[in-house]
Amino acid sequence: MIFPDPMIHRTTEYPIEELFLKRWSPRAMSAESISHKDLMSLFEAARWAPSTYNEQEWRFLYATRDSEDWHLFLELLVESNRVWCEKAAALVVVLSHKIFAANGKPNPVHTFDVGAAFQNLSLQGTAMGLVVHGMAGFARDQARERLAIPEDYAVEAMIAIGQPGDPLTLPDKLLKREKPSSRKPLNQIVCAGKFRFGED
Amino acid sequence: MIFPDPMIHRTTEYPIEELFLKRWSPRAMSAESISHKDLMSLFEAARWAPSTYNEQEWRFLYATRDSEDWHLFLELLVESNRVWCEKAAALVVVLSHKIFAANGKPNPVHTFDVGAAFQNLSLQGTAMGLVVHGMAGFARDQARERLAIPEDYAVEAMIAIGQPGDPLTLPDKLLKREKPSSRKPLNQIVCAGKFRFGED
Repeated sequence: MIFPDPMIHRTTEYPIEELFLKRWSPRAMSAESISHKDLMSLFEAARWAPSTYNEQEWRFLYATRDSEDWHLFLELLVESNRVWCEKAAALVVVLSHKIFAANGKPNPVHTFDVGAAFQNLSLQGTAMGLVVHGMAGFARDQARERLAIPEDYAVEAMIAIGQPGDPLTLPDKLLKREKPSSRKPLNQIVCAGKFRFGED
Repeated sequence: MIFPDPMIHRTTEYPIEELFLKRWSPRAMSAESISHKDLMSLFEAARWAPSTYNEQEWRFLYATRDSEDWHLFLELLVESNRVWCEKAAALVVVLSHKIFAANGKPNPVHTFDVGAAFQNLSLQGTAMGLVVHGMAGFARDQARERLAIPEDYAVEAMIAIGQPGDPLTLPDKLLKREKPSSRKPLNQIVCAGKFRFGED
């Protein structure tokens, strides 16, 4: 087995669908391509997320590793992400439309909604046995300029998508982190009534 | 059958897990409670979402319909949401920590991450046959004041959670909207390389 089994490392306080526990964010990928159809299934899942007034304000720009734009997308990443993303099959820049298409008014939940769409994409990837890893570490200004992203769209995140690879090909520092992470106890993120969370 | 079947109204361009298609945002609820255990399963699902540096910056404040805080939470909603949320089993205010707990620096994806956690919650609700409906329409300032939400937390959204009810109990205007929504074609939200989306 190449990957650690998330179900061994993770325990829940209350029962949930297995898919949520199985999903994690590996870095080891094999440098193989994925089919256009598989890539589109990921975006298809994102497409069905909920959004305010069904605005569907998410947009996805992507480059596959065999495309002309591959190096452009790779260069947007900070070095610490680029080192493992070189073996991804596709890189994605996630955008959100900041205003409502119908009336130009500000959309207060454009980023929140796009986060929901991203999560559909990542769960679909898990179901398909693919690596899906969201990233905050990239040059947003460069992305805007080089990908001609209009001002009324926010640059939200990048995503690496790929075939699972051998963790031993990762640099030592990343190899140590290549396992499903745990979570805070539920009482540190949920409370009844007023805000009553202590210091972490 | 009380609810329309999303699988009849919705078609995909590429195959995806059925759960994403089944999820929609009904308004008709029965005014019944849900068990503490079921409510906690929803937050448990949210708990396992991905976040930058595993920050887990999501926080959830909730009130159940049989609790003292119920009316406070209900009053935060705009009238058009309050009218159907009166029959919810629980109302939730979703928050995000805007700064990293470890170093106090701004977290660029705090809202994005919380959107991902919300989507886990809503998919878990779908799997359990519950209504989960995210809302942007509520008084954020009042929520902050009345729920004692510190300044370093963003007030992101509210969620209605409940048992499915009879759509015929909804006001006419809402009854007309009580069906699973469709989506834009995939080529309006996804493109290879640079931003090349036309006008909607």
